[in-house]
Amino acid sequence: IMANDTKPDMKTVQMLRDTANRLRIHSIRAMCASGSGHLTSCCSAAEVVSVLFFHTMKYKQTDPEHPDNDRFILSKRHAAPILYAAWVEVGDISESDLLNLRKLHSDLEGHPTPRLPFVDMATGSLGQGLGAACGMAYTGKYLDKASYRVFCLMGDGESAEGSVWEAFTFASHYNLDNLVAVFDVNRLGQSGPAPLERGADIYQNCCEAFGWNTYLVDGHDVEALCQVFWQASQVKNKPTAIVAKTFKGRGIPNIEDAENWHGKPVPKERADAIVKLIESQIQTNENPRPKPPVEDSPQIIITDIKMTSPPAYKVGDKIATQKTYGLALAKLGRANERVIVLIGDTMNSTFSEIFRKEHPERFIECVIAEQNMVSVALGCATRGRTIAFASAFAGFFTRVFDQLRMGAISQANINLIGSHCGVSSGEDGPSQMALADLAMFRSIPNCTVFYPSDAISTEHAVYLAANTKGMCFIRTSQPETAVIYTPQENFEIGQAKVVRHSVNDKVTVIGAGVTLHEALAAADHLSQQGISIRVIDPFTIKPLDAATIISSAKATGGRVITVEDHYREGGIGEAVCAAVSREPDILVHQLAVSGVRQHGKTSELLDMFGISTRHIIAAVTLTLMK
Amino acid sequence: IMANDTKPDMKTVQMLRDTANRLRIHSIRAMCASGSGHLTSCCSAAEVVSVLFFHTMKYKQTDPEHPDNDRFILSKRHAAPILYAAWVEVGDISESDLLNLRKLHSDLEGHPTPRLPFVDMATGSLGQGLGAACGMAYTGKYLDKASYRVFCLMGDGESAEGSVWEAFTFASHYNLDNLVAVFDVNRLGQSGPAPLERGADIYQNCCEAFGWNTYLVDGHDVEALCQVFWQASQVKNKPTAIVAKTFKGRGIPNIEDAENWHGKPVPKERADAIVKLIESQIQTNENPRPKPPVEDSPQIIITDIKMTSPPAYKVGDKIATQKTYGLALAKLGRANERVIVLIGDTMNSTFSEIFRKEHPERFIECVIAEQNMVSVALGCATRGRTIAFASAFAGFFTRVFDQLRMGAISQANINLIGSHCGVSSGEDGPSQMALADLAMFRSIPNCTVFYPSDAISTEHAVYLAANTKGMCFIRTSQPETAVIYTPQENFEIGQAKVVRHSVNDKVTVIGAGVTLHEALAAADHLSQQGISIRVIDPFTIKPLDAATIISSAKATGGRVITVEDHYREGGIGEAVCAAVSREPDILVHQLAVSGVRQHGKTSELLDMFGISTRHIIAAVTLTLMK
Repeated sequence: IMANDTKPDMKTVQMLRDTANRLRIHSIRAMCASGSGHLTSCCSAAEVVSVLFFHTMKYKQTDPEHPDNDRFILSKRHAAPILYAAWVEVGDISESDLLNLRKLHSDLEGHPTPRLPFVDMATGSLGQGLGAACGMAYTGKYLDKASYRVFCLMGDGESAEGSVWEAFTFASHYNLDNLVAVFDVNRLGQSGPAPLERGADIYQNCCEAFGWNTYLVDGHDVEALCQVFWQASQVKNKPTAIVAKTFKGRGIPNIEDAENWHGKPVPKERADAIVKLIESQIQTNENPRPKPPVEDSPQIIITDIKMTSPPAYKVGDKIATQKTYGLALAKLGRANERVIVLIGDTMNSTFSEIFRKEHPERFIECVIAEQNMVSVALGCATRGRTIAFASAFAGFFTRVFDQLRMGAISQANINLIGSHCGVSSGEDGPSQMALADLAMFRSIPNCTVFYPSDAISTEHAVYLAANTKGMCFIRTSQPETAVIYTPQENFEIGQAKVVRHSVNDKVTVIGAGVTLHEALAAADHLSQQGISIRVIDPFTIKPLDAATIISSAKATGGRVITVEDHYREGGIGEAVCAAVSREPDILVHQLAVSGVRQHGKTSELLDMFGISTRHIIAAVTLTLMK
Repeated sequence: IMANDTKPDMKTVQMLRDTANRLRIHSIRAMCASGSGHLTSCCSAAEVVSVLFFHTMKYKQTDPEHPDNDRFILSKRHAAPILYAAWVEVGDISESDLLNLRKLHSDLEGHPTPRLPFVDMATGSLGQGLGAACGMAYTGKYLDKASYRVFCLMGDGESAEGSVWEAFTFASHYNLDNLVAVFDVNRLGQSGPAPLERGADIYQNCCEAFGWNTYLVDGHDVEALCQVFWQASQVKNKPTAIVAKTFKGRGIPNIEDAENWHGKPVPKERADAIVKLIESQIQTNENPRPKPPVEDSPQIIITDIKMTSPPAYKVGDKIATQKTYGLALAKLGRANERVIVLIGDTMNSTFSEIFRKEHPERFIECVIAEQNMVSVALGCATRGRTIAFASAFAGFFTRVFDQLRMGAISQANINLIGSHCGVSSGEDGPSQMALADLAMFRSIPNCTVFYPSDAISTEHAVYLAANTKGMCFIRTSQPETAVIYTPQENFEIGQAKVVRHSVNDKVTVIGAGVTLHEALAAADHLSQQGISIRVIDPFTIKPLDAATIISSAKATGGRVITVEDHYREGGIGEAVCAAVSREPDILVHQLAVSGVRQHGKTSELLDMFGISTRHIIAAVTLTLMK
């Protein structure tokens, strides 16, 4: 054990103990007012939070969002009230506000969200905080090269979530010595002892096996906590895990370490007596002053990125949109140095390697751990530090639905790019094909969903995504398809392109990606038979350009056919049906993939699943017979 | 190291080496024929597969699906060809079939699926095999109390997936000594060294820290492999991990342990020479004979479960559907002893504890690890051994989308029950509310989606799910709502209920769960104004009863309003729009939740998000004005 230059004096130690007890009292009062909440989870963490906020962490008390501040993530989100209590003690929340906990219109929700300035990440789903902390620590160490450090407080129950161990792998691989994870090992979960029960030594062994510098400590001993947090700051090239042995409900008679108190406030009639008892242990009435941060993170700009030259493709060139994506990303990287790319072991098949070649220092290999890749991206993007693009096979983003859902609550500003979409991705078989990705991303609030159909529109999608706040998803395809737009074409979110039209159009066909090309081929065939059809490329599936679709439908006798390399449920067809559902006299015929699909060649599969040129021609013919 | 009674003699050792080389040759030939595949991943595992199939595992060669067989799961699914090659050597696949690898209509897909009789689980998404293996081993040890054992072969790259460590936690917690996991540590991933690189000792440390009996072994040494597999069979109360140090591409000159050979066959022009070289090392021409299994698993029946008494509720009783679910499940458990329930630490809030009280021996606590909970359920349900119900907050099933997607490819027969759906689940805040679960489950092929609206229909949903092959999802709600059906009412999948109708109905309103009750309240209000509306309870959202919806719509002037406690995207409204999209003169008005939602009380939130009685009345009024 190293000597500790910053060892707290006895007065500070007492102040930290007193602060911990004040945090308990705030938590009790807030939950008595709300009538619900997880008091016992707050009490086990009181000393850890006290020491972190008033001894270890460096930050500006009056500016919780300052880029140089140390970061704190409450991954054990049930303890939200104690986080709010800490900010009462810091001075950013009033005691009376705290009594609005969990009430409608109050930002003090049951679980913390970034509606509060001191919360970077919503942590209402367990096991996701550490991955985001990894992203912040990675950004601090390698991109900002700044002094700020990152602290993540976790529960013992959530250590059962595999995503936690993905983050452990990542952090040790990247030597994130600016990251500290605290396990609050309070033994009890919602319905009984947590999985590994009392064995704090098991946590210690696991953390060490995953390559972390690890300390086992009494989580109610403020001196010991000050010591281990200081030691963590001295360790080079390893993240630190602190396994804090604690008691759930610490400090509350008859509730401490007892079962069946999960998620409950103390009974109101007992609250005053308990508060008095805790108050009687308090000897000082002010908090130690938090240390100010070192102000050494760079000034950055991540808005208004211009496309400095038009896309370098000409009409008729054949290239896969998933390859164009890689090229566009590398170009974007030249336009802004805060563009970063994350990948999970698939940089060659997703063409992210093109970016890596040009900008290796901004490329983050996250290995085969999609959940953590997205959590890291979310963390990298907090406080506007980066423009993050995370790439994966679109099908494997299903692994991350919960992180995406939480990302929306976190007001996350990240971009996801999914390759190998649909049956057109071919031979590896059904597990590799994304067929519900549009359904998933459409369901994410405020998510912009791009589905470009050629190289020009893909490049524009990448630039638009970089410049759009909130989450963006770009769906790219494996088959090589022809460029259909000129380099001068302009693209906007929510603006469809009518790619084929005449005054005599009889049917509107809406396709995207490979099916747009199938639709164009169908239009060629049909025109030889004297039948002209209108073909629409929606460009973004969310928002969908309902106005263009409706006016085209009206111009073509109310006849619409949608054709998509995606399941029927939640895809383009249903989006179109919903968009025209309040218009009289528009009928929609959907061509989409159904059933568990097979492996095979692209053209075989498009045909087998009823979304090829031949099927479009048949659908048009059938529609016109009615 | 213990003495090994079953140590192979020198002849057997040579035969096992030769078998391994024959497996390599089959793999090379299959991939030369297909022109794609992951040869190097096959070659690193050749000795492991040889020893498992021809020395360690007990099974009936001619009946790969026999319930008493040892199970084998290929979690490192890129090595599919070597699994197929093993079954060529066993005698269940012909050499000529193997040359159809990855071709359309061949069941020999790029990654294994249960279209093949010897595959229990599709493993095309990494890190999911071990969780399913845990389910099989749990079933073997605690439910079947049988001798069969379970083997899971994993890659080193996939150890980065957190779901692997969820399974590690589960298996050691339940002392699954009939489970053996093999890590094929061949160092190289798709685009470079795997995350922990060459350090096989790191795998060993991690496995031991998670409580597993662990051996480090040369994965190309058949004698050593025979020894450790035998030792594993002797260890009581601990699962065994075997960390096998191997070389990717083992046995192929210039490819062994070289980068840039991931996912590639050998060049065709080199294939013959390589095959000749490997053949030259083969000294015997038959395989050791696999040992037959001990036949001691019980005969079971899991079909045709009858509801022996009608539901014990009367019209007007108030009870939450999520509580009814718990009661129905306990009753179902009495009707069939192979009904099991899985849960992730939320047994009280999901009411699964009612089942546990009655049937503790069939209740599996999976702690806070939703991915593994579902993988275990999938494993428990293989070979028709159990009727598995897994419960969670519906919102947290988003964590498991990839497992569900793969479950459909696995033809899985499991039931998922999601509680706390929609904004009506109230005060814990947005992270706890499921608002895209219908979108997700609707996108799963062949998944039946129930959304019962009272206690009677919930109980029927539970029984129908138990009797329905394939995946089923039941969406349950937290608010207490009135019973609206009589105990004698009959329910069928795909059959909606018209719960309010008259000859003068002007509008059809479709609601489910809480919104059905809001719709009924709206009908009462409107009838006082002399406006009668038809109210439909769809009961199942997939399949949706399009016929009833269309006929009701036609009977009410083509006017339809949908109202749902779910996002607009992929929910009931879009499903209805799609169902009526080819009918002229039907207009649909959707009421649904949008945006990131807040915490608050149920009634406040239903109103704030536009899906309450008041909003339905307004929508009806507006619709009639048009």
